[in-house]
Amino acid sequence: MSTPLSSTPRTTLRRLPQRAVGERTELHALLDEALVVHVGFVDQGQPFVIPTLLARRGEQVYLHGSARSRLIEVLAGGAPCCLTVTALDGLVLARSAFHHSVNYRSAVILGRGREVEGQEKLAALEALVERVSAGRWAEVRPPNPTELLATRVLAVSLDEASLKVRSGPAKDDEEDYELACWAGVLPLRTAAGEPQPDERLRPGTRVPPGLAAWAR
Amino acid sequence: MSTPLSSTPRTTLRRLPQRAVGERTELHALLDEALVVHVGFVDQGQPFVIPTLLARRGEQVYLHGSARSRLIEVLAGGAPCCLTVTALDGLVLARSAFHHSVNYRSAVILGRGREVEGQEKLAALEALVERVSAGRWAEVRPPNPTELLATRVLAVSLDEASLKVRSGPAKDDEEDYELACWAGVLPLRTAAGEPQPDERLRPGTRVPPGLAAWAR
Repeated sequence: MSTPLSSTPRTTLRRLPQRAVGERTELHALLDEALVVHVGFVDQGQPFVIPTLLARRGEQVYLHGSARSRLIEVLAGGAPCCLTVTALDGLVLARSAFHHSVNYRSAVILGRGREVEGQEKLAALEALVERVSAGRWAEVRPPNPTELLATRVLAVSLDEASLKVRSGPAKDDEEDYELACWAGVLPLRTAAGEPQPDERLRPGTRVPPGLAAWAR
Repeated sequence: MSTPLSSTPRTTLRRLPQRAVGERTELHALLDEALVVHVGFVDQGQPFVIPTLLARRGEQVYLHGSARSRLIEVLAGGAPCCLTVTALDGLVLARSAFHHSVNYRSAVILGRGREVEGQEKLAALEALVERVSAGRWAEVRPPNPTELLATRVLAVSLDEASLKVRSGPAKDDEEDYELACWAGVLPLRTAAGEPQPDERLRPGTRVPPGLAAWAR
């Protein structure tokens, strides 16, 4: 999996090309860290962007949803889509308004949905649950036939994707370094609070070890 | 501003309508809390979703970008767009795989961009910088004419918008409450780390008070 990201005219960065990252492993790392993907599709000429959970297996990103959701309906029909995954890593405070920025990693994947069934569908659902808490799939009741029918799963391949990254300090105009105002970076991350047990939990039930990974 | 959200056929939730929130103040609160909006637009039949910063003033959402960015170019041309803002509030662990979920707030705004100039443009840029750190606009060097030319600002109105919210505990099937596995919610939030001062900061420069608001 160490092949670089394929570059097509549609995924070649036009602005700030120095922020392009060509390493497929870094794309994978972002997709494996982020929980939410923003899916873009067109319905009757109107673009829509809907957030949903994602899981990656190899070079496929899996989404799932209700059999009646518009997102799933449109994508399962083979319409072109755009999957965007963003991690906000920090606020960049410069000495001029203009050079304020953010540190981020952002992946843009262009493709079409492919509905998956059978073993691949089950494996994708497992991967989606495992994203929440490693080991979770084995702890819970698996989907029954009715639930499987009510859920549709789509795959989008990573064939056409770009990754854009900004990191590091503010970059000010040389003459602005004399200004007295503060400049620097405020790091941001997704943080977990204390697990809130369900009211009807059976006494003595312990927090699953997989959740501990969120206490970074 | 206590008017409810307008409901059009395009912004009426088809799935899980009980998650719809009709309060305009709650939409405002989400837009004022989130830093990033995912903007959907169509270019030559292909949907694109690009993350960018946002700021709200009244019933307008403002975006900005390089005069050469495709996002800005397409939106300034009056193309239909979709602005989606998502806050992930928690992971919901149920006793069955099927009922796993997330707590979230998600706004979907449909509209068209309107390029703004003059005083409204300056006020929008001020609002964007103030989102990073309250009081920041007065601390830094304001944009010069060259920088203003290099930056374009767009407004999208909140006329056609929906807000969808899931909160609270897992909802399991009655018979699954007997299962021994843990269930509950893991709260998630965006957390700030320690401010990292720029290497070339003038000695004795203090962290601006506006940044302290991030230390929630």
